[in-house]
Amino acid sequence: MSEQRKKAVVLVSGGLDSATVLAIARERGYACHALSMDYGQRHRAELAAARRVADDLGAVEHRVVRIGLEALGGSALTDPTIAVPAQTEEGIPVTYVPARNTVFLALALGFAEVIGARDLFIGVNAVDYSGYPDCRPEFIESFEHLAAVATKAGVEGAQFHIHTPLIHLTKAEIIREGLRLGVDYARTVSCYQADEEGRACGVCDSCRLRRAGFEAASVADPTRYRSR
Amino acid sequence: MSEQRKKAVVLVSGGLDSATVLAIARERGYACHALSMDYGQRHRAELAAARRVADDLGAVEHRVVRIGLEALGGSALTDPTIAVPAQTEEGIPVTYVPARNTVFLALALGFAEVIGARDLFIGVNAVDYSGYPDCRPEFIESFEHLAAVATKAGVEGAQFHIHTPLIHLTKAEIIREGLRLGVDYARTVSCYQADEEGRACGVCDSCRLRRAGFEAASVADPTRYRSR
Repeated sequence: MSEQRKKAVVLVSGGLDSATVLAIARERGYACHALSMDYGQRHRAELAAARRVADDLGAVEHRVVRIGLEALGGSALTDPTIAVPAQTEEGIPVTYVPARNTVFLALALGFAEVIGARDLFIGVNAVDYSGYPDCRPEFIESFEHLAAVATKAGVEGAQFHIHTPLIHLTKAEIIREGLRLGVDYARTVSCYQADEEGRACGVCDSCRLRRAGFEAASVADPTRYRSR
Repeated sequence: MSEQRKKAVVLVSGGLDSATVLAIARERGYACHALSMDYGQRHRAELAAARRVADDLGAVEHRVVRIGLEALGGSALTDPTIAVPAQTEEGIPVTYVPARNTVFLALALGFAEVIGARDLFIGVNAVDYSGYPDCRPEFIESFEHLAAVATKAGVEGAQFHIHTPLIHLTKAEIIREGLRLGVDYARTVSCYQADEEGRACGVCDSCRLRRAGFEAASVADPTRYRSR
C-alpha cells in the first residue's frame, strides 16, 4: 500500500511553516521524503526539531545535507559577525541568506531525481515573507522551468511540480490549517537564535511573525520562550 | 588598480575545463573569485588541483564550500556503491550527479551576491558533454532567468550573466585556448577516480575525453597516469 503512494520531497526546516507543509503533503497522499539542510546555522535546535517533525508527521525518511554556506558569509543566519536584529528592518533584512532557496530547491531536485519523485514541497510564503526574494511565486515558477531542463528526468520528459501550499496564506491561516491536520507546534522551532534546547528569543523577526500568527488565529502560543 | 576590476565568481573544479575558464576570465579583465565544491568526491586530488589552479592563474581568492551530496546518493561520483564505468555508456551515464550544476550555480550565485559580483563563469561544454543535461545552453539560459528573480540584487534591478566560454568548443579547441593563455595542464586533474597524488586512471570517460583532446590538438598529453 505505502509502496504505491506517489513520492514527494518535502523541505523540512524544523519551523512552523515547513511542519505545516509536511502535514499537507501527507494529507494529499504522498509518501513524504523529508529533507533538511545543515547550513552552518547558529543553532542546532532547528535540525533537532526537523527530526521530531518528520517523525511526528509520518515522513518515510529524513535526510540531512550539510552545506557549508558559512564559507560564503553575508547573512546574519550564517555569519557570526553579523547580529540578528531585534527590530523589523526596511527592505530585505540581514537574515536573508543569499540564494538560499535556490540552493535548497537544487538539492531537493537532486534528491527527487535519485528517488524518482516528481513532486517537491517547500514552505515559502509571499505574505509574511520577511522580504526574501526567493519566497515569491515568480521565483518558484522560474525554478520549475529550470527543473525541466536541468535534469535527466526532465530531458526524458518528466515534469517536476514545486508545491507551495502556504504561498498565499497568512501566518494565522497557516496555523489553523496545521492545527486541523494535527501539527503540534510546540515541537517546532522558528526562532533565528533559539538556544540549544530550542527555546525562542521572542524578539527576532521570525519570533514576532510567529507570535503574531498565534494571536491572529486566536490560539494559545505553545512556543517555549527563554524569557518567560 | 586591482580594486577597480569587475569581480567574477569562477567555478573551479581542478579539471582541465575550469582551469581554462579561469584563464579566460582573467584575460577578460575580471578579478576572479574562485569557488570549489567539496561534494563527497571519491578523491581529494581534485580539490588540491583546484587550489593549485586558482593560485597559478591569479585568482584573488579561493573558497571551498562543503556540500554533503553523498547523503543523496545516486551517482558513481558520490556513492561508493556505484562503480565508475571503464567504457562509454549510452545516454546519461552513472557519473551524472543529479542536479549538480544547479546546486553549484546556486552556490556561486549566493557567493556573487555576497561579494557584489554580477558575472559567473562555469566550464560547461555541450560538445563533449558526456550526456549531462545541465551542461546545455538551455539550462544556462534558464538559470540566468532564475538568478534575476531569486536574489536581492536581481529584485533591485541587477542582471546576472553566466559566462560559458567553452560551451561550443571541442576538447582540442579548449586545450589550444588554454595553452595560449599559459595554463599548465599537468597541474589539473580531470579523472573521476584519480589517486591521492592526482594520477589519473586513464580509462574513465573523463580521462578518455581528455586524452582524445590532446591527441586532436596535436599536443603532448602532460597528464600523469597511474599505469604509465
